[in-house]
Amino acid sequence: MSHDFRSDNVAGAAPEVMTALTAASTGFASPYGNDPWTERLNKRLCALFETEVAVFPVATGTAANALALSAVVPPFGAVYCHEEAHIHVDECGAPEFYTGGAKLVTLPGANGKLTPDAVLNALKTAQFGVVHRMQPSALSLTQATEAGTVYRPEEVAALVDVAHDHGMAVHMDGARFANAVARLGCAPADLTWKAGVDVLTLGGTKGGCLAAEAVIFFNPAQAEDFGYGRKRGGHLVSKGRFLSAQLDAWLEDGLWLRLAGHANAMADRLAAGLSALPGATIAYPVEANEVFIRLPETVIVALEAAGFSFYRWDGGLIRLVTSFDTPAWAVDAFVKIAKSA
Amino acid sequence: MSHDFRSDNVAGAAPEVMTALTAASTGFASPYGNDPWTERLNKRLCALFETEVAVFPVATGTAANALALSAVVPPFGAVYCHEEAHIHVDECGAPEFYTGGAKLVTLPGANGKLTPDAVLNALKTAQFGVVHRMQPSALSLTQATEAGTVYRPEEVAALVDVAHDHGMAVHMDGARFANAVARLGCAPADLTWKAGVDVLTLGGTKGGCLAAEAVIFFNPAQAEDFGYGRKRGGHLVSKGRFLSAQLDAWLEDGLWLRLAGHANAMADRLAAGLSALPGATIAYPVEANEVFIRLPETVIVALEAAGFSFYRWDGGLIRLVTSFDTPAWAVDAFVKIAKSA
Amino acid sequence: MSHDFRSDNVAGAAPEVMTALTAASTGFASPYGNDPWTERLNKRLCALFETEVAVFPVATGTAANALALSAVVPPFGAVYCHEEAHIHVDECGAPEFYTGGAKLVTLPGANGKLTPDAVLNALKTAQFGVVHRMQPSALSLTQATEAGTVYRPEEVAALVDVAHDHGMAVHMDGARFANAVARLGCAPADLTWKAGVDVLTLGGTKGGCLAAEAVIFFNPAQAEDFGYGRKRGGHLVSKGRFLSAQLDAWLEDGLWLRLAGHANAMADRLAAGLSALPGATIAYPVEANEVFIRLPETVIVALEAAGFSFYRWDGGLIRLVTSFDTPAWAVDAFVKIAKSA
Amino acid sequence: MSHDFRSDNVAGAAPEVMTALTAASTGFASPYGNDPWTERLNKRLCALFETEVAVFPVATGTAANALALSAVVPPFGAVYCHEEAHIHVDECGAPEFYTGGAKLVTLPGANGKLTPDAVLNALKTAQFGVVHRMQPSALSLTQATEAGTVYRPEEVAALVDVAHDHGMAVHMDGARFANAVARLGCAPADLTWKAGVDVLTLGGTKGGCLAAEAVIFFNPAQAEDFGYGRKRGGHLVSKGRFLSAQLDAWLEDGLWLRLAGHANAMADRLAAGLSALPGATIAYPVEANEVFIRLPETVIVALEAAGFSFYRWDGGLIRLVTSFDTPAWAVDAFVKIAKSA
Repeated sequence: MSHDFRSDNVAGAAPEVMTALTAASTGFASPYGNDPWTERLNKRLCALFETEVAVFPVATGTAANALALSAVVPPFGAVYCHEEAHIHVDECGAPEFYTGGAKLVTLPGANGKLTPDAVLNALKTAQFGVVHRMQPSALSLTQATEAGTVYRPEEVAALVDVAHDHGMAVHMDGARFANAVARLGCAPADLTWKAGVDVLTLGGTKGGCLAAEAVIFFNPAQAEDFGYGRKRGGHLVSKGRFLSAQLDAWLEDGLWLRLAGHANAMADRLAAGLSALPGATIAYPVEANEVFIRLPETVIVALEAAGFSFYRWDGGLIRLVTSFDTPAWAVDAFVKIAKSA
Repeated sequence: MSHDFRSDNVAGAAPEVMTALTAASTGFASPYGNDPWTERLNKRLCALFETEVAVFPVATGTAANALALSAVVPPFGAVYCHEEAHIHVDECGAPEFYTGGAKLVTLPGANGKLTPDAVLNALKTAQFGVVHRMQPSALSLTQATEAGTVYRPEEVAALVDVAHDHGMAVHMDGARFANAVARLGCAPADLTWKAGVDVLTLGGTKGGCLAAEAVIFFNPAQAEDFGYGRKRGGHLVSKGRFLSAQLDAWLEDGLWLRLAGHANAMADRLAAGLSALPGATIAYPVEANEVFIRLPETVIVALEAAGFSFYRWDGGLIRLVTSFDTPAWAVDAFVKIAKSA
Repeated sequence: MSHDFRSDNVAGAAPEVMTALTAASTGFASPYGNDPWTERLNKRLCALFETEVAVFPVATGTAANALALSAVVPPFGAVYCHEEAHIHVDECGAPEFYTGGAKLVTLPGANGKLTPDAVLNALKTAQFGVVHRMQPSALSLTQATEAGTVYRPEEVAALVDVAHDHGMAVHMDGARFANAVARLGCAPADLTWKAGVDVLTLGGTKGGCLAAEAVIFFNPAQAEDFGYGRKRGGHLVSKGRFLSAQLDAWLEDGLWLRLAGHANAMADRLAAGLSALPGATIAYPVEANEVFIRLPETVIVALEAAGFSFYRWDGGLIRLVTSFDTPAWAVDAFVKIAKSA
Repeated sequence: MSHDFRSDNVAGAAPEVMTALTAASTGFASPYGNDPWTERLNKRLCALFETEVAVFPVATGTAANALALSAVVPPFGAVYCHEEAHIHVDECGAPEFYTGGAKLVTLPGANGKLTPDAVLNALKTAQFGVVHRMQPSALSLTQATEAGTVYRPEEVAALVDVAHDHGMAVHMDGARFANAVARLGCAPADLTWKAGVDVLTLGGTKGGCLAAEAVIFFNPAQAEDFGYGRKRGGHLVSKGRFLSAQLDAWLEDGLWLRLAGHANAMADRLAAGLSALPGATIAYPVEANEVFIRLPETVIVALEAAGFSFYRWDGGLIRLVTSFDTPAWAVDAFVKIAKSA
C-alpha cells in the first residue's frame, strides 16, 4: 500500500505509447529521422503550435535543454535562470558543456518563478559590450517550475519582453510543459511563441514516454546549425522512428494532456488531503503535479515507516510528485497514514 | 520484392526486445539506472565477459564512442584510428567535442583493418613528451570493421601491445561486435580484455535493439568519472530501465548472437550469389554483415531500378548491409535481379 | 596635476624591469623557456618560496588563473570563490573555457574575503558523488582581495582546511600578491604552501612588469600536464626569455616588495588624507593598494572636473588604485582638491 | 664561431623595437588596448593594407592562429590545411581547443604548398549539409610555408576561389608573412585581401619583436565577437601598449621588411654556399628564410661537432633557419665547415 512519490520519472510508460512503439518496431525505414513517424510528428507539432516549427527529438531532457541553449548562446554568453532551475542544479553542467563554457546567472524568485523586475535588476550590472564580462544571451524559464507552479501567458510575455529588449533569446524548459498546459487550459501557442518564446524543450518522458523530448524552434532560422550540434553530442538517434513514434502517440488525440491532467489531479488530491492536517503548510501553490508541503516530523517519519518514498527538501519540507500513473488509492493511503500519525 | 540494404539501422527491433520493453513499461522503479533491469544487465555482462566490468548504457553509438574516448584521452591527446573509422568519418566530431578537442590521427589499412606496423610507423613521429605535439593517448579499433571484416583475438592483442607499450589506452568500437563474435565463435572476453582492450562500446542498436549501447570498462578504475561525463553529455536516461531492459533481453540466452548470426548468414548468401556474376569482384573478405562488391554498372542500375536500396561507395563499388531482420527472399531476389541484368 | 587612479595597470613598467629586458634582447637563446633567464627564474622562485616549485610564466593574469584552475578542476567541477572575484566577474568566462565548462559558485563575504563558515555552508548542499551535481573541486582565494584587503596566513590556513577536508584544491589569485606580502611582512611561503595553498598565480604585471605572471605549483605533481594546457591555450611564449627576464628582474633583491610597498604607502596616504573629510567613509580596511571610499557627490564631481580618473563603484562609492609609479604629489593633489570641494 | 640555425625564434629583439618599448614604458595609459600606441598601430595597418582592417594584437602565433580560426569556424567545422602546417603539427591542438573541437583536414602538397586541385579533390568527399560529417569551413594557408617557399598572389587567389566557392573562409598563417612580402616585393594587400584572404595572422615575433602578433580581419564583420574570444582565451594583454608598441615600431618605415630581407638574404647565402657541395641537394626552393638541404652524413656530423645547431628533419635532410639577427660571418663559417668536411 505504499508508493513512490520521489519524482514523475519513477513511472513507466503509457500503454498507448508502448503500443505505438511496438507497432513501429517492425519493417524497414530510413534512419536518422528520415522516416514516416518523424514526418508525422513534425506535422503534428506544427498543427499543435499553429505555426511552422523546427523539431528535433532527443532522448533526455538534459540533452534537450543544453542543446537548445547552445543554439542561442555563444561561449561567452550568460544564461539567466531561476536559482533552482534544473539546468543549473541538476544537469552536472550540461549547459556549460554544450555552449562551450557559458555562465548561468541565477536569480531568486518566489514560488520558483522569475519576475521581470528580478531580471531587469540583474541586467543592470551586466555591462553589455564590455569584453571582460560574459554577455547576457538567453533567459531560461521552466514551465511548470521546479516549485510546481506555472507561468501564465502574460507572465511569460512580460519576461520575454525584458529578454528581447536586451537582445536575449528565450528558452523554455518544458520538462513538465504538459502539466502547465493541462492546468491552464490555454493553447500551447499562447504559452510559447505567441508570448515570444524562441525555443521550447517539450518533455515527453516525465509525461508518459519512455525517453523522448523534443527541441522545438519557433524561429527555424535559429535552428540552422542544430542538426550538427545534435549529431556531435551523440543525440541523433540512429533508428529515429523510435523517438518520434513515442512522441507522436503521446501527442495524438490529446493523450499528453489527459495524462498530465491525471497527474495534476493527483497532486490536487494530495494537497487537499494533506493541507487540512494540523501543522501542515503548503509551501507553494499547487499548479502542476508537485506538492511541496511542510509536515510535522512525526508525520514524515510515519509516512517513511509506512514505505512511502519522497524527498525531504530541508527540515520539515517534503516534495511529493505525482505522475500519469499515480493511482488514486496511493494518494488516499498516503493521506490516511498522514492523518493517523 | 525490393529491399533496403543501405545499413543495418534500417531494421526495426527484435520481437524479444520489444516484448521485454513492454514488460518493463509498467509499474514504478528508481530512475537513472538504479533499477532492477540495470542491475540484471550489469550481472549479465560481468558473466558474459567473465570479469568485473563497469557498464554504462546510452542511447547511441556516437555517444558511446565519444564518451568512452573522453574517459581515456585528455584534451591534448591523439586517438589513432583507421581512416575509415566511424569516429572519424561519421560522428560530426563527437570525439573531438567530448574529449575537449583531441585529435584523431588516421591510418590506412587493407580491408579496413589496422596493423601493428602501421601504428608503430605513425608513432615514430609522435614526439612523446613534447608540448607542441598532441600526445598519443588511445588506439581505437572497430570490430567488425567498416569494411565488414573482423579482427582475430591475436590481431587485437598484437595491436594492443603496441598501444600499451606506448602508454595508450585501447578502445574498441563494437557497433557490430555481435557480428564479429558470431562469426569467430570465440568468447567475448577473448576479443576484448583478454586481448588487452580497455573499453568497449557494445552496440545493441544495429543488432536488434531500438536504441541501446553499452560502454563497458574492463578496468573499472578508468570509469571513475564516467558517470559525470555521461550526465553532462545528456546521456543519463531518466527512466533507465528502458535502456537496460533492451540490452538485457538482447543478450539473454544468446539472442544477440543468433540475430547477428542471421545477419552474417545473409551477407554470406549475398556474397555467394553475387560473386559468381561475370564482372563481380568482392572487395573485402565477407566476415560480418556487410558485402562490398564491385559490379558492372548495368547490374547496379538494374538493381536500383528494381527498387533495391544500397550505397554506391565509388565507381562500381557498392555496399550491402544485412541485418537481423533481412529476409532470405530479399537476398535471393537481389541476386536474381543481378544475374538477369 | 591630475592622475589616473582607475587601476594599477595604467602604469608602465619599472625601469629595472625594462633594463633587464633590454639586456635580454640581444644574442641567441633556446626558445620556449629553455633559456638561462627561465632557469634563473625557476631557481629564484624555489629560493623565494623555500621549496621546490613548478613555475610556468604566462603573459596575462586571466591566462594564469584559468590555466591554474584547469589543472585542478575537471569539466564537471565547481570552483568556489568570492562573488566579486576577478575570475568570476572580469575574465569573460576564461575559467569556464579552460576547464571545459566548470561552474563558479560565488559566495558573499565582508571586505572581499571568504570565511570558512561561508564555504562550509555552501558545501552543505553540494551533494558529493551525485552525478547530477557539479562536484566541488577547488577553492579560489584572491590575495590581496578585490576589496583591497588581505588574508592573514592563519586565515588562509583555515580556509584551506575546509577545502582540503572536502577534497578540493586551493588556488590563490595573486594578481596583487606582492601588495599582500609587502603589507604583512611575512614570508611568501607562509601565505601559500605553508598555509596549504596548492597553486598560486603570481602577478607581475600590476606590480611593475610589462606583461608577466607566473603560475606556481607547490605540488609539482599537479603540474604534470600543465605544459600541454599552456601550449594549447597559446600561452607558451616562443621567445620565453622575455617573460622570464621580466619576472626575474622584478623579483631580484626584493624589488617587487619595494614597488608594492610604495603602492601600498600611496594608498595609505590617500586614505589618511581623505578619511578626515566630512562625509567621507572608508568602505573596507586599506590593506593593499586600493582605497574604497564613499565621498559626497560634490567632492566626486570636483575631482572628476579636475581631471582625475577613477571608477565609481556605485552611488557615492569610488575606487582608487595606486601603483608602483603613483607619485606622492598626485595623491596630495587629489586630497587637496577633495578638501577644497 | 658556431651559430644556432634551429629557428628564427632563437634570436632576440630588434634594437628599434626595444627602443620603442622602453619609450612606451613610462607614464600612464589606459589599459586593454585603449592607448595611443594601439591607436597608432591600427592606423598604420589600415594604411599598410590599403583598407579598413580590424586589428587584434596577441602575444603568440599559436594564439593568433587559433583565435583567428575560431572566428570563422564552428565547432562542427573542418579546416583544410597542408599536412605540415604549424596549426596541425606544432600547436598541441590549439585550433581544436579554440574552435570547440573542429577538425583539421590535412592535404599533401609539393614544396609545402597547397594547390587548388588538392583542395578540390579533398572537398569531393566532404558531403556538404550532411550532419554526420564535419563541414568544410576554412582553408588555412601558411605564408611563407613550412618548407620556406612562398605563394604568389595569383596562387593565393586561385586557392581562395576554391574555398569561397565552397563557402569556406580563408585564413593565412603569416608567422613569416614579412619574409614572403620581402621576397616577392609586392604590396601586402596583394597577398591578402585583394587575393581574397579573410583573416591574416601577422607574425612579429619571429621577425624581430619580443612577443607580438596581430590578427587582422579584412572583413571587420567577421571580427564582431573576436574581442570576447580573445579575452576569454586570456589573450587580452592588460598593459596593451606593450604589444602595440612592439608591432608599431616593427612596422615603422619598413623596418619589418628590412629585417625580413636580411633573414632572406642570409638564407640565400647559405643555399648558395651549400648547394655547390658534392652530395648536397636543396629540397625546396629557397624563397624565405629557411633552407632545407640534404647533405652527406659526414658533413652534418662535422657541422654538429663544430657547435652549429639545426634540426635534422629525417635522414640526411636538415633545416636551417635564418633570422633578422643572423650574422653573415655565421653563414660563412657554416659553409666553410661544410666544405671542409
